[in-house]
Amino acid sequence: MSPKLPAKARIREVGPRDGFQNEPEIISTADKIALINQLARTGLDRIEIASFVRADIIPQLADAVEVLNGVDIPEHIALTVLVPNNRGLDNALKVRERFHEVAMFVSASETHNKRNVNRAIDESMADNEIVAKRIDSEGLRPTAVIATAFGCPFEGKVPMARTLEIAEQFAAVGCAEIGFGDTTGMAHPAYVFDIFSAAIDRLPGVEIAAHFHNTRGQGLANAYAALQAGCTSFESSFGELGGCPVPAGSTGNIATEDLINMFHEMGVATGVNLPAVIDAARAAQSVLGRKLTSHCIVAGPVDWHPDGTATGCH
Amino acid sequence: MSPKLPAKARIREVGPRDGFQNEPEIISTADKIALINQLARTGLDRIEIASFVRADIIPQLADAVEVLNGVDIPEHIALTVLVPNNRGLDNALKVRERFHEVAMFVSASETHNKRNVNRAIDESMADNEIVAKRIDSEGLRPTAVIATAFGCPFEGKVPMARTLEIAEQFAAVGCAEIGFGDTTGMAHPAYVFDIFSAAIDRLPGVEIAAHFHNTRGQGLANAYAALQAGCTSFESSFGELGGCPVPAGSTGNIATEDLINMFHEMGVATGVNLPAVIDAARAAQSVLGRKLTSHCIVAGPVDWHPDGTATGCH
Repeated sequence: MSPKLPAKARIREVGPRDGFQNEPEIISTADKIALINQLARTGLDRIEIASFVRADIIPQLADAVEVLNGVDIPEHIALTVLVPNNRGLDNALKVRERFHEVAMFVSASETHNKRNVNRAIDESMADNEIVAKRIDSEGLRPTAVIATAFGCPFEGKVPMARTLEIAEQFAAVGCAEIGFGDTTGMAHPAYVFDIFSAAIDRLPGVEIAAHFHNTRGQGLANAYAALQAGCTSFESSFGELGGCPVPAGSTGNIATEDLINMFHEMGVATGVNLPAVIDAARAAQSVLGRKLTSHCIVAGPVDWHPDGTATGCH
Repeated sequence: MSPKLPAKARIREVGPRDGFQNEPEIISTADKIALINQLARTGLDRIEIASFVRADIIPQLADAVEVLNGVDIPEHIALTVLVPNNRGLDNALKVRERFHEVAMFVSASETHNKRNVNRAIDESMADNEIVAKRIDSEGLRPTAVIATAFGCPFEGKVPMARTLEIAEQFAAVGCAEIGFGDTTGMAHPAYVFDIFSAAIDRLPGVEIAAHFHNTRGQGLANAYAALQAGCTSFESSFGELGGCPVPAGSTGNIATEDLINMFHEMGVATGVNLPAVIDAARAAQSVLGRKLTSHCIVAGPVDWHPDGTATGCH
């Protein structure tokens, strides 16, 4: 029999932050709110909704407060906001009552951290320690994601020990959840299995999360490997939006609908309504005015029975 | 440590048959020959080059004889032709000295077999028995692929016992290799692991091959699961061309360059030069005049170090 898989997994939808952030054309606040409200009615129970970054650096997310104040979110959903530093947290706390979790981040490689947030890793982590304590004291849930956890486009392979060391630092300052981000799609399933096995073993009581990109088509293979290692927490983006596409033109985050389809087919429950997520991805496609790259947005769930097939094929 | 994987795997490039077959515009014979000659210099040692089907049904492959006579193929490469029936074999044998293997096929579901080749499964298998014996008596290698092995778009799930029964029938008539085709992208990794484990166990001495489509984005996840089950033989298509896209607009075959990239990253050797395959896929892109859907054609191998990355992301 196949390797035993967890009976269920949790999905955090990151499209409203990670997806929208990478769109070159500004999406109207009203469109963002409508799409988020639609996502919030698909059975998803976690949504990363905004990032409190400098508006001159990421103009697309300058309306974070308006979005947070404008959405209509069912009670059971936990909303997450991303903050790059302590100043970001200051801004987020102006609408403290509108979200539940705060995500920090740092890169596992110095060069990427420098280019991403213009700081050394140690400086970021010193700031993250302050941020984590403030989040906790506000009664919010501190979470973290380690970028370039599977490799850096500038430095190449990142030692597993280094990535795990950063994870332990986040755990030590009270992060309830630590994600491993495959920022530019350098993860492969064998490595994923090993690092998730190690992280789950070394950080008992901490939620270990997977944030994969589909840059080189391995996103779902990595998700399968993470599941095999016992990971039950995943981040993905409806329509396969966003995910810091590097190199330019690449796909980014794994698509929520493709991930859920695979999980459901394998009997791993998510509580999410797949057709409803596909509908939301199609709505995003309409808003953005272009074809998105998720697979199930075209092919649908596997129980679709199309009318035709080609001949002479297999 | 991660589940033990095979040290190496074999890839059959099926783009010149399975890929070209699904192109709506006729590709010139000269362009086909140039692309095949390029593929034959990438380290690939197996290429499925043509199908001997009725020209009125698949006009794209009407030049099979001209292609076979026109290509310049290094000695170490085994060329495969596909035949839908005994009449197809008659036509193939007119250029008997130009190829090495012949692939038969049948669907695991009655409805798909009827729509694909207009016959019942039993009729197809009776013909395949005659074809297999003739292939063997010609000193060629008989191979087979079972379509809809992981599900049928008309009938839904196909019982594993039924698919394995057909595989045993192919083995009984002398097939040296039997592939399991995920015709419309209904396979998931847990099922893949189980059926490949069973097939390898029940058919010792037969090469068990995987023919996956990326219809719902799970192609490489399924390849990883097949590897874990001990499968070392894979079919794929450069550029992610072809693969009977159902529903219309879906992607088909897994991309050779994406598969090889994942295998090499995991330390599974293929003998294939990845940048050379990417070059061939880009040449196909030029010939076809449109962007293809493979990932590595855009992102390149993981050792690429692009100049830029977005800010404030993970």
